[in-house]
This record gives sequence, C-alpha cells and structure tokens, in this order.
Amino acid sequence: MKVGDTHYRSIWFENGEVRIIDQRWLPHEFRIVTLESLDDFATAIRDMWVRGAPLIGATAAYGVACAMARDASDGNLAETCEALNATRPTAVNLRWALETMQTALRPLPVGDRATAAFAKAAAVCDEDVETNRMIGVHGLELIKDIAAKKDGPVNVLTHCNAGWIATVDWGTATSPIYQAHEAGIPVHVFVDETRPRNQGALLTAWELGGHGVSHDLIVDNAGGHLMQRGEVDLVIVGTDRTTARGDVCNKIGTYLKALAAQDNGVPFYVALPSPTIDWTIQDGFDIPIEERGGAEVTHVQGKLADGTVTQVQISPDTTGARNPAFDVTPARLVSGLITERGIAAASPDGLAGLFPDRAA
Amino acid sequence: MKVGDTHYRSIWFENGEVRIIDQRWLPHEFRIVTLESLDDFATAIRDMWVRGAPLIGATAAYGVACAMARDASDGNLAETCEALNATRPTAVNLRWALETMQTALRPLPVGDRATAAFAKAAAVCDEDVETNRMIGVHGLELIKDIAAKKDGPVNVLTHCNAGWIATVDWGTATSPIYQAHEAGIPVHVFVDETRPRNQGALLTAWELGGHGVSHDLIVDNAGGHLMQRGEVDLVIVGTDRTTARGDVCNKIGTYLKALAAQDNGVPFYVALPSPTIDWTIQDGFDIPIEERGGAEVTHVQGKLADGTVTQVQISPDTTGARNPAFDVTPARLVSGLITERGIAAASPDGLAGLFPDRAA
Repeated sequence: MKVGDTHYRSIWFENGEVRIIDQRWLPHEFRIVTLESLDDFATAIRDMWVRGAPLIGATAAYGVACAMARDASDGNLAETCEALNATRPTAVNLRWALETMQTALRPLPVGDRATAAFAKAAAVCDEDVETNRMIGVHGLELIKDIAAKKDGPVNVLTHCNAGWIATVDWGTATSPIYQAHEAGIPVHVFVDETRPRNQGALLTAWELGGHGVSHDLIVDNAGGHLMQRGEVDLVIVGTDRTTARGDVCNKIGTYLKALAAQDNGVPFYVALPSPTIDWTIQDGFDIPIEERGGAEVTHVQGKLADGTVTQVQISPDTTGARNPAFDVTPARLVSGLITERGIAAASPDGLAGLFPDRAA
Repeated sequence: MKVGDTHYRSIWFENGEVRIIDQRWLPHEFRIVTLESLDDFATAIRDMWVRGAPLIGATAAYGVACAMARDASDGNLAETCEALNATRPTAVNLRWALETMQTALRPLPVGDRATAAFAKAAAVCDEDVETNRMIGVHGLELIKDIAAKKDGPVNVLTHCNAGWIATVDWGTATSPIYQAHEAGIPVHVFVDETRPRNQGALLTAWELGGHGVSHDLIVDNAGGHLMQRGEVDLVIVGTDRTTARGDVCNKIGTYLKALAAQDNGVPFYVALPSPTIDWTIQDGFDIPIEERGGAEVTHVQGKLADGTVTQVQISPDTTGARNPAFDVTPARLVSGLITERGIAAASPDGLAGLFPDRAA
C-alpha cells in the first residue's frame, strides 16, 4: 500500500536486489534495506526486521533465490534452507516457503536454478498479494452493507497488526479496509495499541496513516466502551491459527474484544488466508499458547522527545510479569471467517463448505 | 499498609506536621513531603501528588485544619474551602470533605477552631480507614470460601488502583486481599497494568510488593485468557460511582474483565464505600464519561536504564487518539457489591436492603 505518495510492498526485487522495510524502526523511522547474503536474510527473519507469517515466507523464498545466484548446487540449496529454517522455529509459513522452493528447484539442472528461484520467489509474493486482495474483495461487502445503512464513516475496530506489512501487500484484517478506502467508502479505524508489543500503535497506525486512512489509536481497554456507545460498526482481526471448527487463536486480547462485540451486537469477523486453518485441530484450547518473557510487559519501547528510540520500565524493580502472547476466541463469538474464497461461518460445516478439498 | 518493614498511611499528622506520599514518583521513588501552606495542599490535590477520592477528601480536610492554625476567621475558612474546592472540579469526595469541615467549624468560637479542625481531619481519616477495613472484613469471606475449596493460593485479578494509597489505608478492592494476607491465607494477585495511565503497574504493583503480597503484572489484554485457563478465582475492582441499581462506573477496561469473568464463571465483585453509591441514578449509561487528552494514549511514562523518569511516544507523530477514561459495567455482570455494611447483590433490592436509610 502507500507510504505517502509511493506504493510499496513489504518486500520487492528491484535492479537485481531484494529490498525490505526494516520494521524494527517503525513508526519512528522508515528504513529500506537491501538483503544480499544468507546471513542478511537469516538476520532479517530471526531478529524481526520482517514479521508476519506471509512476509517471513516471502523473505525466505528470496533468501533461497539469492543463494542460488551464488551457488545453485544441491549442497548449497540444502544448507540455505536449513539455515533459514532455524531462524524462527515455530513459523509454519517459513517451513512451507522453504519446501515450496526446494520442490521447485531440486528437479532442475543447476544452471537453471537461479532464474527459476527468482521467478518462484516472485510467484510466492504475487500469490500472497492475490490471496489478501481477495480477502479484501469479500470483506468489502460487509463494509458496503454497513455503509448503505448509515451516515458517516463505517467505524472498524482492529487489534494488533494484520496489515500489509505483515504480508507482502494489502494485509489480511486491513485488506477490506483498504479496499473500502480505494472504493471511496468513508472508513474510520479504531486501532488497539495491542500491549505488550504495541503492534497496533507502532505498525497499524503507521500503515493507515501512510495510506491516508482515517484512524484513532485507543488503549486495549477502550474498545468495549466504544462498542457500548455504538461507536464501532464492525470488528475485523487477523489470526495466527484457526481450527477446523472455527476457533480463532490470535494476539492476546482478541477474545475480550469478541466478548464485547457479542454483548453489543457488533459483528466480529476474522480475516485469514486459508493456509492458516489447521484442519487437524477442532478445539482451539488444544493449541499451546506461547508465554513470552516478562520484560515485554514491564517495559515499553518508544521515542524520547529528542527522537531517540528507547525503552522505559513502567513497574517496580521487584515486580514480575506473566506474558501469554495469544488467546483463543471460541467460534461461537465469531460472526464469520473472511477467506480468499469467500466468507465462511465459523463452524465445521461453514469451513468445510468453502474448502471441501481440504476439510477432513 | 506496609512499605517494607514500616506501616504507613497515605496521609498522616506527625510532630505537628501533615505528611503525604508524593505519588507522582511511584514506584520509582518513595518521596514523603510535608504540606504546610494552602498552596501546598492545593498543588498536591490539583497536580495529583495525591489521588483517589478518599485521600483527596482527607487531604482537603487537613488543608482546612492547617489554614485554621494560621487564621481561624470566617473569612479564611470560606476562602480556604473555595480554593481547595477549585482544585479538582469533579471530585465529589472533595466537596463532601470541605462541607464536613465547614459544618463542624463554623458554629465554633474562632479560638477553638484550629484544635477542632485537626481533630475533625483526623476523624475523617480514621473513618475512611474503618470503612475500608470493614470492606476487607466482608470481602475476606469470599476469599476464605475459595481457599477452603482449593489447594494453592487464591488468585485474584484487579484493575487499576483501588488500593491503600487511593484511600487513607487498606484501599477498597485491595482491602480483602490485605485482610487475607494478614490472616495467613495465601493470595496471588494478577495486576492489570491499566493503560493509559498504568495505575496498576505503577501503584498497585508497588503497594502489593511493599506489603509482601505475591503478585504478577499483566497487560490489560491478558485477563480473559487467564480466566479461560482457570487461573483466576476471583475478580475484585473498585468503582468511581455505582448507581442505585448496581451499574458500576470504573476505570476504562473494567467492563471487558467483567464480560470475561461472566463467560468463564469467575465471580466478579466490586468493592466500594457506600458514599460512592449515587442513589439519584439508576442507569449507569446516564453517567457522563470523561474523555481525556490523547497524549495519555500516545505516550507512556517510565524509567530509563539510568533511572531518569520520562515519557516515550509509542505511535506515529501524525496519529491521534481517543481516550475515554471510564466505562460502565452493567449490574447483570456484577456478582456482588462489597460495602462496609456487607455484600449486596448488584440490584435495586440488593442495595436498598443493605442501605434502607439511603435508598429512595
């Protein structure tokens, strides 16, 4: 999407080089970096210069392509994939991208691999963009329906960052919002700051501002009150993993917003590319929840008045913290799942109806 | 309660001087200051060196007493009360304390007023302590019942700071917790950080740590997940105003925790001194909600590695914010109201039964 006047993807190939936005500095600095060596790519993924499952996969694909340009041997292909695979041990999409590249490249003569690898990496990116665009096309209908029934902007609340910089473009939860904005439908977004890591305040607010979409930052505590007062027309969030019956595992705090949406009759939708559906699990509570370090809770990163980006400690030196990173929103609280194939009910039948080829 | 080995109140009279804890620096610094002039008292209230309705009232009472020691004339009594009244225009308890002092002092000969004023201010403080102690006595029964049915500590979640430093001692929501701790019942407290002002992280965590009560800081997003996993036995929060039918106006985000408590069968109690019941209002949604400045959302205060306390900006320069300060939890989500007279159902009959002298 746009950053001011210029359209960007979160990763792109230009003048023979792979470029990304180094997201660690957003929103305070917009830094574009070029990735060349295997070490560059591994560092970018491991140290979260890029984040978001689709973007991690796309970055790994280009990492393999750059490695093939240097040495397209079987040995280097295997070593490159092994090194990249080790950067984020739990990233399913990273695994998928590396397998896709290996499957495409291994049968080819060594001399053909580099060209094919860059083409395949570009295809991985384009496929992600198209998937997200279609999520937006389907989700746009929800926004259109609301816009037809009210004056003024459609107010959408979102949590965390399921935006274009977590994907190659469009984002998942943000895609219907950008589609509506492009279609000239007035939308206003309430952006949950999303403690502890503040991806809403840091990234979603930056994205929306860059593209010119009206928005307000709110604390994670405020969404329920806004829904009670009729100030939210629609909630759209992303998901890390959705089960075959429609339970949604997403960033911590999602469940609280789903409860408030239900209590106030506000539609609560989850936007997801179908690969994030885990067909092997029914009950969302079977998904193990990562507990991260307490320092993310006791400390907050931001910009000092002089522009320096640093961390401040908000609690007493002796206070510890618990830091569950995700929660599970039961399917009963989900109005629908917005996928690239259309909107499914959050139920076994709903998902199986849209994905008869994948359901058990 | 205790700060390490020493028992403190949040305001006290010692060696002829009124002392308070300057709460602006907590938890990073524990500063005790002496208040003498009218300007000292006005500044302490206006600039939130002290906060919390009961403590604001107690501070105003001592402000009047110190003024009477200098000049106990009718004119000075009126001027002092007028000046203190102007410091926090919406603080009901400030109004109440000033009227209490004036009613007690006006009939007295000028020469008797100073002594009487100090005695009355001390009585205002002692009355608050006793009210809160009784809230604890009644609330303790809830904790005892849970402790009798489980192994390990009773896990209590609280929001914001309804603790001893918001009152003269004991606090409201924290009083049952301190009572349980004193009684040797193992309790563990999950402390919501309570964005945007982080009173949980800054104040409640400091209080509990100082008194030796086991606790963990959590982000406001995490409570629902902990309740889903059975890690919370009881929620106790405070309130700014409760209506005659039991709707509870409290710090923003309280409503979300009440929804999660109901969804998971966790008892949700509100601790309150009866003067915070507004017998003139039934529907909590008739209470106007203060919207505060966006800078509280876009900026966070904390301590740098070098010990300096400062603010960092967490969002883009161009992003605005909405900042509703309170929300309303409907009575249907409230398991009970813990008052100094006992625990009432959150209903017109429940409250009127406990307060037949005050109900309409």
